[in-house]
Amino acid sequence: MIVGIISLVAGLLGLVVAAMLYRSIVRRPSGDDLMIAIGNEIQLGAMTYLRAQYTKIGIFALVVATLLAVSDQHGFGTSIAFLTGALTSALAGLVGMKAATKANVRVTAAARDQGAGEALLVGFNGGAVMGLAVASFGLVGLGIFFTGMASQFAIHPESASIIWGFSMGASSIALFARVGGGIFTKAADVGSDLVGKIEAGIPEDDPRNPGVIADNVGDNVGDIAGMGADIYESYVGAMVAAITLAAASSIAELNHYFGEGVTRPMLLALPLILAVIGLGCSLVGIYSMTAFKKYGPEKALAIAEFSSAGLFLFLTMIMMVLFGYSWALFFAIVAGNLAGIAIGRAAWYYTSSKPVTRIIQSCKTGAATNIITGLAVGLESCAVPILVIVIAIFVSHHVAGQYGIALAAVGMLATAGVTMTIDASGPISDNAGGIAEMSHQPPEVRKITDHLDAIGNTTAATGKGFAIGSAALTALALFVSYKQAVELAVGKMPMDITDPIVVVGVFLGGIVVLLAAAMTMSSVGRAAMEMVAEIRRQFREIPGLLQGTAKPDTARCVAISTDAALREMIAPGMMAVLAPVIVGFFFGPAALGGMLLGATLTGTVFALLMANAGGAWDNAKKSIEAGELPGERKGGEAHAAAVIGDTVGDPFKDTSGPAMNILIKLLSVVSLILVPFIT
Amino acid sequence: MIVGIISLVAGLLGLVVAAMLYRSIVRRPSGDDLMIAIGNEIQLGAMTYLRAQYTKIGIFALVVATLLAVSDQHGFGTSIAFLTGALTSALAGLVGMKAATKANVRVTAAARDQGAGEALLVGFNGGAVMGLAVASFGLVGLGIFFTGMASQFAIHPESASIIWGFSMGASSIALFARVGGGIFTKAADVGSDLVGKIEAGIPEDDPRNPGVIADNVGDNVGDIAGMGADIYESYVGAMVAAITLAAASSIAELNHYFGEGVTRPMLLALPLILAVIGLGCSLVGIYSMTAFKKYGPEKALAIAEFSSAGLFLFLTMIMMVLFGYSWALFFAIVAGNLAGIAIGRAAWYYTSSKPVTRIIQSCKTGAATNIITGLAVGLESCAVPILVIVIAIFVSHHVAGQYGIALAAVGMLATAGVTMTIDASGPISDNAGGIAEMSHQPPEVRKITDHLDAIGNTTAATGKGFAIGSAALTALALFVSYKQAVELAVGKMPMDITDPIVVVGVFLGGIVVLLAAAMTMSSVGRAAMEMVAEIRRQFREIPGLLQGTAKPDTARCVAISTDAALREMIAPGMMAVLAPVIVGFFFGPAALGGMLLGATLTGTVFALLMANAGGAWDNAKKSIEAGELPGERKGGEAHAAAVIGDTVGDPFKDTSGPAMNILIKLLSVVSLILVPFIT
Repeated sequence: MIVGIISLVAGLLGLVVAAMLYRSIVRRPSGDDLMIAIGNEIQLGAMTYLRAQYTKIGIFALVVATLLAVSDQHGFGTSIAFLTGALTSALAGLVGMKAATKANVRVTAAARDQGAGEALLVGFNGGAVMGLAVASFGLVGLGIFFTGMASQFAIHPESASIIWGFSMGASSIALFARVGGGIFTKAADVGSDLVGKIEAGIPEDDPRNPGVIADNVGDNVGDIAGMGADIYESYVGAMVAAITLAAASSIAELNHYFGEGVTRPMLLALPLILAVIGLGCSLVGIYSMTAFKKYGPEKALAIAEFSSAGLFLFLTMIMMVLFGYSWALFFAIVAGNLAGIAIGRAAWYYTSSKPVTRIIQSCKTGAATNIITGLAVGLESCAVPILVIVIAIFVSHHVAGQYGIALAAVGMLATAGVTMTIDASGPISDNAGGIAEMSHQPPEVRKITDHLDAIGNTTAATGKGFAIGSAALTALALFVSYKQAVELAVGKMPMDITDPIVVVGVFLGGIVVLLAAAMTMSSVGRAAMEMVAEIRRQFREIPGLLQGTAKPDTARCVAISTDAALREMIAPGMMAVLAPVIVGFFFGPAALGGMLLGATLTGTVFALLMANAGGAWDNAKKSIEAGELPGERKGGEAHAAAVIGDTVGDPFKDTSGPAMNILIKLLSVVSLILVPFIT
Repeated sequence: MIVGIISLVAGLLGLVVAAMLYRSIVRRPSGDDLMIAIGNEIQLGAMTYLRAQYTKIGIFALVVATLLAVSDQHGFGTSIAFLTGALTSALAGLVGMKAATKANVRVTAAARDQGAGEALLVGFNGGAVMGLAVASFGLVGLGIFFTGMASQFAIHPESASIIWGFSMGASSIALFARVGGGIFTKAADVGSDLVGKIEAGIPEDDPRNPGVIADNVGDNVGDIAGMGADIYESYVGAMVAAITLAAASSIAELNHYFGEGVTRPMLLALPLILAVIGLGCSLVGIYSMTAFKKYGPEKALAIAEFSSAGLFLFLTMIMMVLFGYSWALFFAIVAGNLAGIAIGRAAWYYTSSKPVTRIIQSCKTGAATNIITGLAVGLESCAVPILVIVIAIFVSHHVAGQYGIALAAVGMLATAGVTMTIDASGPISDNAGGIAEMSHQPPEVRKITDHLDAIGNTTAATGKGFAIGSAALTALALFVSYKQAVELAVGKMPMDITDPIVVVGVFLGGIVVLLAAAMTMSSVGRAAMEMVAEIRRQFREIPGLLQGTAKPDTARCVAISTDAALREMIAPGMMAVLAPVIVGFFFGPAALGGMLLGATLTGTVFALLMANAGGAWDNAKKSIEAGELPGERKGGEAHAAAVIGDTVGDPFKDTSGPAMNILIKLLSVVSLILVPFIT
């Protein structure tokens, strides 16, 4: 119980710091009138979208909450937890996005008036609000339920179902935020590029392009709110899985791995303790930025991230020795933490090193060879991250049993505060660059924002790898919890891989993933077509637009992206929620278990393939634009081939790929919730 | 034993019929001197390649056979069976290809002199030699071992390991034939198209293109020899799985499903009886062609296929009633047979109906949207076939247990003779068209061959779907046999999906598939680049080539494809053979079981995705060339976009996709062989 209160307090403290950071950002100068106007337009678009999205999700959440309340024999607990999970996720997204859309224009202003160091700091602090919100809301939410229920968990393991509701709430928001955000951002991006860059021949972020504001809004709703909801879901899901396994594992198993000195309440409390330490270390990492910004952005970001992770492992070790935890637990945490770093590095390698050179070379023979090579790179790039996940599972289970797998996930995610900060600062810099372009800043300013943007692209690739790795590990931890929950309800229940009903489930899991990928790809295609039609119409019907004497109707484009995103997120969202319900009720818990495994495998594969191929195509295009291919210039044939690859990669890396992360976690947590009904 | 002899005799009779068909083809007129010269060139190229390939595979086969002989405590049986399996597969490929390369030029001649009906018949009979060879060699090989060993199988189930060797022999050949053939054909195809159609602006199959003979050779080695080895592997694998399960299942399980009237020897014999009936029905289907060719090729082919399948089910029903088999077994066979047809239809739908219209429309906005839409179609197209497989598994297991799953696979493949005939006649017509073009035939002749070619494209899509479905079902049947074999050796061995070691295996299985796909994609890219360089060199260095006054050095291009194919097939081949060995020895049988499941899921998904996306892109391009998009002509922007999609689809549908079929079966059968060593 005391740990629950500590979490709550730590979470609230984190929110106070986030509020202070937010105030410090808002007080900064936001540049000239044009910059302020552009900044306001982006913010307005983002907030309008968020409001519309949350309204729709709110209805969905209320329906689910009602169903949970009606069907639950143990009262309204799970239903309330579900709403709390959804609300905290939505709040984290709202706060983070508010900060991001205040920070973007101030990064441009700082780049103009105060130089690169300050610009970096503003962007970083803007991202830190999101990072801290994710970690803090998670601690506050789980802290509340832990304070009220921890003593119950230890005696009645099935009472842990209340926090499954919390996790499902977070997952539901994440699904719609990620899918809707992904469709919004890519409809705007692909649509503006197709007409602006290719047909009208005007540069990216040119203010004459009617889709340019929607594109910048998209960076916020996709890469900040969407990514935040994704990480929040993993962060909560990992802890919920660990608490569930601590509650549900047999005393014999726990004693076998940890000895009798480690009691069940100690294991129940450990995930939250780790998260509190992780939040503290994230704060240290975030504040170290003020001191380290002088080393330049690359180094400063690396120092922030690694010092947080190192400090976290060090403090965890001390804490564990002090409180008498076994070393086995520490090794599981280390396995998870290192796996997170390794997966991020692998993503970095495949999206910016030798494989990109191969893609660049393949552009010389046209778009077809570029696509073939990019897909081959994407396929290859899955091997190392999956191997890392496999090793993390193997090691953590070897030393600490099933609980160890969940603990590895917690270890990977404990410093999510700082990881998310770095992730969110990328799109802020991207926006800052867009604002600089649109407000006609001098080249020195754009050089600073371009540099920050380039770093943002690298951190985005690493961040995506981390998001996928944590999603896979969290999904597997929840999957193991699911099995435990089933056995708690009905006793030993083998789910053998050669049992045809399990095989049926495994294949159905694959289908759900493929359909979700297909749906989201097609959605982007459809929405981008609408955007293309609208932008073409404006260029045709607004006299003087291309000459720069008339203003485009940017709000119309924002509205198109908004409507498309809200409309297109429904079908994949519904499928993700209903698929486990249908399989669970018709084929039973063993088939549902199979489905989780099949979906996690296929989902992880497609998430990695799409994220890395997309990132690699993006960087190949940028490299050719920077003159990497001697004799090939912007607008030449190799560049045209590279642009095609980049355009294919857009929905890959920012819509369908990220949707996989959510899908695999959501399926697992919905299945957990279903356990009482299907057993 | 008697069933073994009957199989042997039936197989030999099938071979006699194949020989008669072959003679009847060879006796037909093969046109004028130019046609004969071109036909000879293609045949020479194909045979040279096959000889080189078999030499390389021969070395591999001898090494494996030696290892098997040395390590097997039970004597040389498995080793000899392995060599027999490899030899029969190679012989089937050789015979089929010989017939195909005799038939192609005679189809052109028949189209010129005797009209469409005769041309269809020659192509069909050419394919029938391959079809009959596949079915007959399979029956001869298995018949021999069954005659010698059937009485052993019933008493000592572990003696069934001898036929695992036979199956592995067939799989090993198939791996190299499919992968090597796939690389050969696409290196030639992509390479010739990139330079010929795009750079030099000359039509497909133009005799001035130095790569044109290699392209036509490729159709034979890829779509005939490769496809034949694939179907042969499934045909043999399905029977081996059924025999293994009949031998290894407990009496209690068998009685539970079939009652005491159905004895173990009856179940052991059933797969071979079905194959004999299937071969008979295939013969009827093949000979019905002479009578039905008057209805035009589409109808005639459909009649041949469906009458064989219908007759097969009818005769099987009568046989089962006569011999006292239970109805449960019949239902499993029907489930498999219908599943095969349904999967073929699904492939047809996704590669030629509404989804293709979507792709055609997306070409209007360029290559990027074409690729995005095609991939979305490919992803979608996996759902129905996988659902069909899932239903077949569920039904066949429900009525007839684990044996039922294998029996469903046998039911699907029993009429492989006629299915393979139709598959093989497509590339023969394709070649005939190429020969007509190269020998400057009048438009009427080309109209006939073009029509046959177009039908060939449809049957190719259906055939690919069937190959994938049968591969998936065969792999699952072998996977279930693997589990049985493991439990026979060490007793009850749970392989629970939440056991981390199983999860590790599942993910490693995914990695193997992804790496194989990546390797083969890259191989085609590399080999096509070599081809491009050579063709460019010839256009540059041979004076008068483009004007048609000088001859290209086609043999050089054939040699490039040959060398590339033989070089590039090694790495994926080795990985496929070694991966299960490594996982089995280091992580044990449970992890290896997980690997098989993970690989089968991922492999089936990528096989379907790649085959259907590739087929759909191909047809979208053809439709645009035929004027489907008003205002868009050959050479226009939409057409250019469509060509890019088609080029990406080439290695998808003809190299990497088909490699997946082989991979999943090979992994399963290698694992079976490994059972004695890892338990």
